[in-house]
Amino acid sequence: MSGEAAFIAALRGLASHPAARGLADDCAVLEVGGETLILTHDMMIEGVHWLAGQDPADVAWKLLATNLSDLAAKGAEPIGVLLGYSLAANDARFAEGLGAALAHFGVPLLGGDTVRNPGPQALGLTALGRACYRPVPSRSGARPGDAVWITGPVGAAMLGFEALSAGDSAADTGTDTTAYRRPVPRLAEGRALAPLVSAMMDVSDGLLLDARRMAEASGVTITLDPAAIPLPPALPPQRARDAMAWGDDYELLFTLAAGAEPPCCAHRIGSVLPCGPAPLLLGGAAPDGPLGFEHC
Amino acid sequence: MSGEAAFIAALRGLASHPAARGLADDCAVLEVGGETLILTHDMMIEGVHWLAGQDPADVAWKLLATNLSDLAAKGAEPIGVLLGYSLAANDARFAEGLGAALAHFGVPLLGGDTVRNPGPQALGLTALGRACYRPVPSRSGARPGDAVWITGPVGAAMLGFEALSAGDSAADTGTDTTAYRRPVPRLAEGRALAPLVSAMMDVSDGLLLDARRMAEASGVTITLDPAAIPLPPALPPQRARDAMAWGDDYELLFTLAAGAEPPCCAHRIGSVLPCGPAPLLLGGAAPDGPLGFEHC
Repeated sequence: MSGEAAFIAALRGLASHPAARGLADDCAVLEVGGETLILTHDMMIEGVHWLAGQDPADVAWKLLATNLSDLAAKGAEPIGVLLGYSLAANDARFAEGLGAALAHFGVPLLGGDTVRNPGPQALGLTALGRACYRPVPSRSGARPGDAVWITGPVGAAMLGFEALSAGDSAADTGTDTTAYRRPVPRLAEGRALAPLVSAMMDVSDGLLLDARRMAEASGVTITLDPAAIPLPPALPPQRARDAMAWGDDYELLFTLAAGAEPPCCAHRIGSVLPCGPAPLLLGGAAPDGPLGFEHC
Repeated sequence: MSGEAAFIAALRGLASHPAARGLADDCAVLEVGGETLILTHDMMIEGVHWLAGQDPADVAWKLLATNLSDLAAKGAEPIGVLLGYSLAANDARFAEGLGAALAHFGVPLLGGDTVRNPGPQALGLTALGRACYRPVPSRSGARPGDAVWITGPVGAAMLGFEALSAGDSAADTGTDTTAYRRPVPRLAEGRALAPLVSAMMDVSDGLLLDARRMAEASGVTITLDPAAIPLPPALPPQRARDAMAWGDDYELLFTLAAGAEPPCCAHRIGSVLPCGPAPLLLGGAAPDGPLGFEHC
């Protein structure tokens, strides 16, 4: 176990409160005054979570969107957010982008903190939401016989990241980088799905990795049909496997009882089996190679 | 107006939700399901908010304590915290210190995020609390005729910081650095005071600056008696004025109707006047020189 893994394990040990699914499940779920609150906090670091030189308005959008995606996976309605912001060269552009993103999603900024930071810019966002359905969906409820679904394609953010990294503009290559720069959390889909799903999570770190996490949390094996996994039209066929291990698309991965139809646009990509030797099968075999982005 | 000031102003503009006292008042106050929730988020950066090389266990304590102090000023009881953590050299020691601090204050870790960061370590903490008394105290309620009080001395954190900065150990100088390394949020005092005070805030950025903020928010003048301001016994008399402009002591500053006695240990240090030409008087005159630490 690396020092980092030991630290995460130590934090998980500290987070022994029943509400603290946070360190295992991306969100804390808390009963307060007859409501079920969902709390999530994500940090982003310049050069790690976004490309140095990216438009600060896009960074603001993504910071908000990734946290709202955690609420979406819980079928929650956002109440508001708090911002932790280290000052940088183009703060006005960040504020403009944050304002536009907050308005777009109808979410108020409730507070926060600004600090000086001589290093790469560090951002934090805490999102607070209200569960619209109880019990709140978790990643641990998948049952053998369920079908596995996803709300949309994976891989568009990868293409956008690669085009931005290469300094290509859409005019040069025709690549639309929007999916990477401005992901859209599936809030409405999450609320519609919450009463129906047996398990749900957002795909932030790669479909294969997140599907394996769902399988492990549920004590089952998930088998995915590679031909059924939706991919963006612009994706070269030889990049399909890469797209399945790339994150940042923020679609919802969920399981439904066999035969049930989702109330929103979604693609059936696999099914749930009793726990077998491997938690995840792709085309009938345990996948080789990277499954996704392993957070530190 | 500097770029930073313009950014803060822009954020304040975004935070137009009624709950968003956060950017003016350090906390958001939110009605949820019959409860009044208090939310606060502070960031700390290595080399800015703590000395590089400080014991990570002390850093963890201070990160928690400063956020809990914001809850204390609202008379709130902590519900839990979320941690944003960028990995560093001695994560195990941080986890150990955080665990001890959480246990000391009886506060659960509900969730959070860990990230890689090539720069100075960046930490964020979000604290969630439940108001024990409504209306929740704010810094804007001081009224002419009120007396001004503080729960304890200012300056001990300054002495601790100076000793730590100089690399002095307690064995060398006899200086106790605990006040700087491990401030104690006045949670019990805040809860006891909340039903009685007309205004309350914690002194994080310097007594004079925070008193001026309270005066400005309340539309009054606050006059402080320098001889009445409690100082630590170890403070050389010529450092008294410095101590009044130094933060980090996390005592509670509050106003009470004239003649009312606080239900906890506290020192009467001044009184509230109708709004005059200067928001703050010290010994009868507007103070020269720095009043405290102006946040970016």
